[in-house]
This record gives sequence, structure tokens and C-alpha cells, in this order.
Amino acid sequence: MHIAIVSFDGFNELDSLIAYGILNRIKKPDWRVSLCGPTAEIESMNGLLVRAQSLLEEAREADAVLIGSGSKTLQVAADPSMMSRLALNASRQLIAAQCSGALILAKLGLLADIPACTDLTTKPWMQEAGVRVLDAPFFAEGNIATAGGCMASPYLAAWIIARSEGVEAARAALHYVAPVGEKDAYVENAFKHLSRYLPT
Amino acid sequence: MHIAIVSFDGFNELDSLIAYGILNRIKKPDWRVSLCGPTAEIESMNGLLVRAQSLLEEAREADAVLIGSGSKTLQVAADPSMMSRLALNASRQLIAAQCSGALILAKLGLLADIPACTDLTTKPWMQEAGVRVLDAPFFAEGNIATAGGCMASPYLAAWIIARSEGVEAARAALHYVAPVGEKDAYVENAFKHLSRYLPT
Repeated sequence: MHIAIVSFDGFNELDSLIAYGILNRIKKPDWRVSLCGPTAEIESMNGLLVRAQSLLEEAREADAVLIGSGSKTLQVAADPSMMSRLALNASRQLIAAQCSGALILAKLGLLADIPACTDLTTKPWMQEAGVRVLDAPFFAEGNIATAGGCMASPYLAAWIIARSEGVEAARAALHYVAPVGEKDAYVENAFKHLSRYLPT
Repeated sequence: MHIAIVSFDGFNELDSLIAYGILNRIKKPDWRVSLCGPTAEIESMNGLLVRAQSLLEEAREADAVLIGSGSKTLQVAADPSMMSRLALNASRQLIAAQCSGALILAKLGLLADIPACTDLTTKPWMQEAGVRVLDAPFFAEGNIATAGGCMASPYLAAWIIARSEGVEAARAALHYVAPVGEKDAYVENAFKHLSRYLPT
């Protein structure tokens, strides 16, 4: 299982790296989570330099792809040379997008008949692209999920874990990272958003 | 205002980088947040290579220091050559620690008469070091604050912002990163933990 967390220059540290940390709670030899970028080194929106662990082309072969957000998503979405490197396939991949990452999914034609969650800044751009935006932190349909608001990224990570390793593994991963003294409440609130989109 | 987020090899991505993202919500020319490490490049607990933006010695001169957690905190805390590089001063610095970062504070003698929050793994080590551990996500006394559980790191970041830039700036930073559709509830829950430790 390879999960590629796609992050462009200007990426939002919260959106890519909360998911990175939570997805890495699964400790199995064939479970690989990679920060996936257009170049060998990526610079975050606040100037952090991080080495990519996979390149965009590798996301095509990943089992799950999570598109992070960032300060340059509009430019990326308008750049054919960048977009052509992302050839995703929702029939065989789990595809998740956080905040402005949903705009990348829209431009790839993956949100044709599906509403989406995103952040408040990206909302008008999504509407302009013809996507119905929900006032909710999380939504999924089939193999595609979107989340809005940085701190909703644990929901996206939990959805990928639940779809791949089961609901109990997802609950355990969230329980581990939840604040001390409010762990049960944190997990319950997350699954309030997630449960309806998971197989029973 | 320089805030150094101290991160050693094996650092927990959530604990250091959620704080990094939220603290960077303050957009002022003299506001600097640096990922602060023992070496020019630091490797996270899940293999992410990140360039440090300041070295440990610079934390001594920072206005605020946040010690992250990680998989090697026990080794760091037992290494005099590493610990001697951290000479913190709670009389002129805000000092915050996340999860196992609290063990570093204990070893530096900063938790002599103060209880602390930490994660469940670090709890017995803290008790062995003579510190009373609370079953709570956040605690502060004077210029020292601790938090337990990765997703409590927004509380630590908000405390530093509230103490430096005021409560409204802290509320705005948390509101921005909170999940869409639950922003008000998220901020209220955070301040349920924070308010009693902030000047009115």
C-alpha cells in the first residue's frame, strides 16, 4: 500500500503533514506513506524546505493519493505541464483532497458530479469551476473524499485508513494522536463526520 | 519576536509542524518562527528530511521556545552534550513543551514545582523524574506551558500567540485552521482549556 501525499511548492504544512503523521501510525511492512512533490525538494508556504519522497509521476501508481493544499494551487491548477504529470484514476485509487487540493481534483475532472469540501478561500474558485461546495468538514463518494479546514485533515487520513485497514485501525490512529483527556470525545466527533461514508 | 520550535532527529511531525503552521498565521515583519534543530538537516520519526532554520544555541536568545516530541527524546534527555546546548530561561522566555518534550523541560529543571501534561508513553518517565503528570491536554504556570497528545499542539501554539499578541489573535489563528462547519465549536473547546491560564 503506497499513499502519496502530493505537495507543491507553497504547500500548507498542516494539510500535508498532519495526514503524513497519522497515516504513518499504521505499522506494516507493505505500508508506505510518501511526501510526493514535483521536485526533489519542496518549500512550504512558510519557508520550510522538505525533501520529497516520491515524484508526481509516482502518484499514478499509488494505491491512495492525498492532494494537499497551498498558497500556489491556482497557479498549479492552471499549469498544463504540472497537471499532466498527475494522471489519477478513481476506479482503482483512493483519492483524497484537502482544502485547495480539491481545486486540483476539479481541474482533473474528478468532481464532475460530486460535491466537495474545501476551505473558505478556495470556495469561490471551486464554484467557478462548477463544483458544489458543502458547508461541512468532510465528504466522500465512492473512492473520492474531500475535507475543508486544516484541522479536518485527520478525517481524510482516517478515511484512507478505514477504507484500507478497517474502521478499528482508523479509530486507533485517531485515538493515539488525540489530546490527552479528550481522546474519546475527539474520536467520536471525527466518526460523526466519517461513519456515513464507510462500509458498515 | 522569534519562536524556536526545537526538534531533534526522530521528531514527531504533528507536534512540531502543527505549531509551526499555526504560529505562522501571525503576519508581522518582526514575527519569526523557526524549526530549530541540532544539525542543519533533521529527520522526523517517519523519515521526513527537513532543513532546520535555526540551531539549538539560537533557542537561548529566542523570545519563545517550543520543544517538540519524538522517538528519541529519552536519548536526547540523557545526552549532556545535547542538553548543554539548550540553556533556557523561563524568567525572560515563554517556554512550551509538547508530549515527550516535557521530559526535556524536566531534565533542565524547569518543572521543579510545576505539574505537567504529556503523552501516555512519556508519563511514567516524567513520574520517574519526579514530575506530577496531569490527565489533561494543557497546563500553564507563569511562562511555562505543556500539552499532551499531538492534537493538543494547537493549544500550545494558541497560548504563545495569546501571550504575545493577545487573545483575539490566538482565536483568529485557531478559527482559520479549524474544520469548516465546526470552527466556532473548535475555538470554544480550545479556549475551555486555555482561558484560565491567560490574563483577562
